[in-house]
Amino acid sequence: MNTAGRIFRISIFGESHGSALGVLIDGCPAGIPISPEDFQEDLGRRKSGNPGTTPRLESDIPIIESGIYNGFTSGGPILIRFLNESTQSKDYENLQQHPRPGHADFTAHIKYGGYAARAGGGMFSGRLTLGLVAAGVIAKKIISPILPAASLMEVGGNKNIEQALSEALASGDSIGGIIECRTQGLPVGLGEPFFDSIESIISHFAFSVPAIKGIEFGSGFAAARMKGSEHNDSIIDASGKTASNHAGGINGGLSNGNELVFRVAVKPTSSISLEQESWHFGNQAMQSLQIKGRHDACIALRVPVIIESITAIALADFLLLAQQRKLIF
Amino acid sequence: MNTAGRIFRISIFGESHGSALGVLIDGCPAGIPISPEDFQEDLGRRKSGNPGTTPRLESDIPIIESGIYNGFTSGGPILIRFLNESTQSKDYENLQQHPRPGHADFTAHIKYGGYAARAGGGMFSGRLTLGLVAAGVIAKKIISPILPAASLMEVGGNKNIEQALSEALASGDSIGGIIECRTQGLPVGLGEPFFDSIESIISHFAFSVPAIKGIEFGSGFAAARMKGSEHNDSIIDASGKTASNHAGGINGGLSNGNELVFRVAVKPTSSISLEQESWHFGNQAMQSLQIKGRHDACIALRVPVIIESITAIALADFLLLAQQRKLIF
Amino acid sequence: MNTAGRIFRISIFGESHGSALGVLIDGCPAGIPISPEDFQEDLGRRKSGNPGTTPRLESDIPIIESGIYNGFTSGGPILIRFLNESTQSKDYENLQQHPRPGHADFTAHIKYGGYAARAGGGMFSGRLTLGLVAAGVIAKKIISPILPAASLMEVGGNKNIEQALSEALASGDSIGGIIECRTQGLPVGLGEPFFDSIESIISHFAFSVPAIKGIEFGSGFAAARMKGSEHNDSIIDASGKTASNHAGGINGGLSNGNELVFRVAVKPTSSISLEQESWHFGNQAMQSLQIKGRHDACIALRVPVIIESITAIALADFLLLAQQRKLIF
Amino acid sequence: MNTAGRIFRISIFGESHGSALGVLIDGCPAGIPISPEDFQEDLGRRKSGNPGTTPRLESDIPIIESGIYNGFTSGGPILIRFLNESTQSKDYENLQQHPRPGHADFTAHIKYGGYAARAGGGMFSGRLTLGLVAAGVIAKKIISPILPAASLMEVGGNKNIEQALSEALASGDSIGGIIECRTQGLPVGLGEPFFDSIESIISHFAFSVPAIKGIEFGSGFAAARMKGSEHNDSIIDASGKTASNHAGGINGGLSNGNELVFRVAVKPTSSISLEQESWHFGNQAMQSLQIKGRHDACIALRVPVIIESITAIALADFLLLAQQRKLIF
Repeated sequence: MNTAGRIFRISIFGESHGSALGVLIDGCPAGIPISPEDFQEDLGRRKSGNPGTTPRLESDIPIIESGIYNGFTSGGPILIRFLNESTQSKDYENLQQHPRPGHADFTAHIKYGGYAARAGGGMFSGRLTLGLVAAGVIAKKIISPILPAASLMEVGGNKNIEQALSEALASGDSIGGIIECRTQGLPVGLGEPFFDSIESIISHFAFSVPAIKGIEFGSGFAAARMKGSEHNDSIIDASGKTASNHAGGINGGLSNGNELVFRVAVKPTSSISLEQESWHFGNQAMQSLQIKGRHDACIALRVPVIIESITAIALADFLLLAQQRKLIF
Repeated sequence: MNTAGRIFRISIFGESHGSALGVLIDGCPAGIPISPEDFQEDLGRRKSGNPGTTPRLESDIPIIESGIYNGFTSGGPILIRFLNESTQSKDYENLQQHPRPGHADFTAHIKYGGYAARAGGGMFSGRLTLGLVAAGVIAKKIISPILPAASLMEVGGNKNIEQALSEALASGDSIGGIIECRTQGLPVGLGEPFFDSIESIISHFAFSVPAIKGIEFGSGFAAARMKGSEHNDSIIDASGKTASNHAGGINGGLSNGNELVFRVAVKPTSSISLEQESWHFGNQAMQSLQIKGRHDACIALRVPVIIESITAIALADFLLLAQQRKLIF
Repeated sequence: MNTAGRIFRISIFGESHGSALGVLIDGCPAGIPISPEDFQEDLGRRKSGNPGTTPRLESDIPIIESGIYNGFTSGGPILIRFLNESTQSKDYENLQQHPRPGHADFTAHIKYGGYAARAGGGMFSGRLTLGLVAAGVIAKKIISPILPAASLMEVGGNKNIEQALSEALASGDSIGGIIECRTQGLPVGLGEPFFDSIESIISHFAFSVPAIKGIEFGSGFAAARMKGSEHNDSIIDASGKTASNHAGGINGGLSNGNELVFRVAVKPTSSISLEQESWHFGNQAMQSLQIKGRHDACIALRVPVIIESITAIALADFLLLAQQRKLIF
Repeated sequence: MNTAGRIFRISIFGESHGSALGVLIDGCPAGIPISPEDFQEDLGRRKSGNPGTTPRLESDIPIIESGIYNGFTSGGPILIRFLNESTQSKDYENLQQHPRPGHADFTAHIKYGGYAARAGGGMFSGRLTLGLVAAGVIAKKIISPILPAASLMEVGGNKNIEQALSEALASGDSIGGIIECRTQGLPVGLGEPFFDSIESIISHFAFSVPAIKGIEFGSGFAAARMKGSEHNDSIIDASGKTASNHAGGINGGLSNGNELVFRVAVKPTSSISLEQESWHFGNQAMQSLQIKGRHDACIALRVPVIIESITAIALADFLLLAQQRKLIF
């Protein structure tokens, strides 16, 4: 299903090569001030154009068609669309015959019985994350002054990001990266034990971002190599502040009032300029394949704002849900 | 919410110190043969008693109260309960005053306004995973002959598991571990792009298992340090088989027919025998705290069967959902 | 699916002839006082035993196994079970061969592929409404002092209820009835436009009660024969009070602050003592059938408390959901 | 929430006076042929313009922006928009001060805290049913050759529809009506016991259509006045065919293979030309109010196609869900 969230619910739609794509947001409270300018910064951060990103030039202007009136949310569903302007006809027939390694060409072809063709290739496009960022802008307003901040820690295993990018660009290859997201100021007690733990909900959203292949909270994988006496965070005051934060701000699936910290691993961009081998279904043989055009040498560059967005969306949902928990008598 | 799944839905209930706990399973097709013996092996694997695990002696006999008739599922909701036999009165009042580091004592107290008291402590118990394992037994029947296999790769950063356990037990401390789960034989095309990707759904379930703090699919975090030309898996035959499996069997969120591979990080058990410091809410000061009784020195020992169970549950849901996708005309 | 509700969610389980049946309640706020005595009055009103109802003697004692601690809800899932004590082996094999008119014998047999057999017959039992009434008791606490009140308006088309019952009992036949439910004190604005209107949600629950075949809000079917100038309710004060209440307290799917009024039609009990004809699948012919034992001559007698319960459940869900709508900044 | 359905899910959005409105459809299988012409007939039937309906001239052309490629559904979410062309600025400020009887002016104003203003008035518009009809067109393709057929049985209590309309138009008043929907060819066993009975799901959708105030299945309210011996439908052959159809094709909440029959009551249009009284919130007094412009004298004229649409949507969901129930081993 293309919907996520329990109270603050978002549904994405569209293909990279259709006329438009976007997001439908349901369950947003009335009275939140929203202006077109609110979207500029985050959409700009997501956009391509920097070294290491593709030069596809889309204006990415959000068109709000419902749910906002006179500058405030009305309480109804909010539809935000983006036009696809620079679509170019790709040889999608060929992608089905000769699927690109790392892409969904083969899996989508089987799943949708051949009907996804052009639409199918495009259904998996990173361009769909425009809707996530647009919804994130509204979510950030709901959770304000809480504000998730994500940044790129390393690319291609290298903390010298510019150097790693230059090398990747020069070689026609691609590199991945690691992003860390930190959020301060959460109240204690968001989340639910078991299925709707903070980790469960955030990871569910994070893995909906193309190219994410791992997530860890607090010390994460390093925790598996620590002793309990090292890993346990001592509570040091009445607000629940802890001396260390190996738990990443979460105990028992619930926020503990300390900084929420998690990291995601972004795989190297699947599209590369180098020649690759892949099965050709028509010719029934392995065959060489070269992906034309320019690509993101490091898609991870564009992901921090998307990770912030999905964090804000998840937290908006948790905060709105927490309202309901209050005793009403 | 204490429910997960879209078609094959499970709801867990109970506290470690109430009269009973268990799982309610909805959406299970009729006609699946189930006998009480089917549960023995997996419940046995989850049970404590080995070196490094607690000696709490519970019989853990599943009591099936609905949804199964004459040895077959009837198509109705299946309720499976487990009695709590060896509950002992803990000083829960004290846990609220003096919360244990790493536990949910503090967060639950704030979230539930003090009403969770004993119940609250117990709502977060690893004992609730009994319901996950019981549901997993039924899920494994649904997905048969597909069979997830999880195993412990290392504990405390050490591949010599027995040695690491001995050291931890001797020191009164605890250690974590890393578990890998592999599943062969998935059809191509399970999963959905974006929100209901295989990674999203499995991670959602995996983080509902207490003590899990990280998950990675295929090469995972290592992928962030690879080049695209290394990471991309070439398709080498008409079935979609790939030369390598850095993607862990998933492209675009969909199963690609290769082995599904993921790893989870288990933190060290929070309960340790060593003295720890924590804020005492009554005395308004940091104070030393010692957790009595015997504990799991390495909870990760008991987690592989739980990871298999949640994988089977997620795959049963994907497989049943895939049925619906078929054209019906 | 056997679950309903968005925030306050209930799942029913069990069969009339299994060991136990009941309800699992999720999303109930912590801190609501609950004692076993709270259930007595409503369970008693639902119980059989009066003239016109069956003499099946079940003690119907609710067994609470989770979610309540020291007399208060803890915030976790609440499991309430009822034991089936007076089950008797019916000839279920025969019901599949020779299905009873008006019952689910035939439809369940086809749906569940023969596996529902005894369980299947029992999955549709009115006895499952025990869980609805138990959940209703908790819902009534949540919505207090709001209190739905349902009563029987007529049975068998006759407002002289005792006379109609005597006649039905004497003839071995059964009769239906009409129940009206009135609820005062709702705040303005519960409900959502379109899919989650008050009417949509209440009717969804009402038709889950066996034997209900119609529902109307306010003037209902009579409204279809009125003029707009007659039907429109004039607002007469600043609280939204209306001069008349043809709308039954709902405008645009939302509560308008006036009394919520709806009526349901209960069909005559399907089990009657009189001989009936039905296809015999084994003999491949119409054949006479007689249902043994004593039956409810008028099941409608037991339904008012169930209608109150589902109304309370729906309103608890609406009220808890409304909490979330509040601006949080 | 503005979403309904479990597998075939529809979300509506928009306001009558915004730039566009429509529907987002998720869970539609790939490979269904869809052309723009497919929508013409049903959208035409819904349209105003006949005697008794408003002359608002909208072209109502569906704009499909995702999920359909080369004339077939792709398996992704389908967004269908309709532009609002003849919006005219109404005095919405005044509607909040002086709410129209029978409309959602007052309830929406309270619910959305005044932010719904113009948008709020429009969120409840019958114009939103365009999305229901568009989704219904696709649902009808999924369930083909099953085809729900709804027709107007009476308006204003009169089976001579033209005469009743003439009188209503002449008097400046409005009238309601009763619509019957019949569907042949359903397989046996759609629906679930209790919460997701056929009656529950169809009534949930039916009451999302503005102006519907009652629904009854089969004999409905008349059943409450029948004897069991009259009401029970005898099964007369091996396919489950019954001699009578008082149950409306449903036993135990499941389709029994006979014709599905239900009726809905449509209240008289709330907007009338006659003067009405309503509280003026600004002036703190009852005051006379006259609704300008031309209105539907009988909105029921336009509702049959909408009832067919929601029936098709509900049945598509049931049929797709039934696929999943099949044993997969």
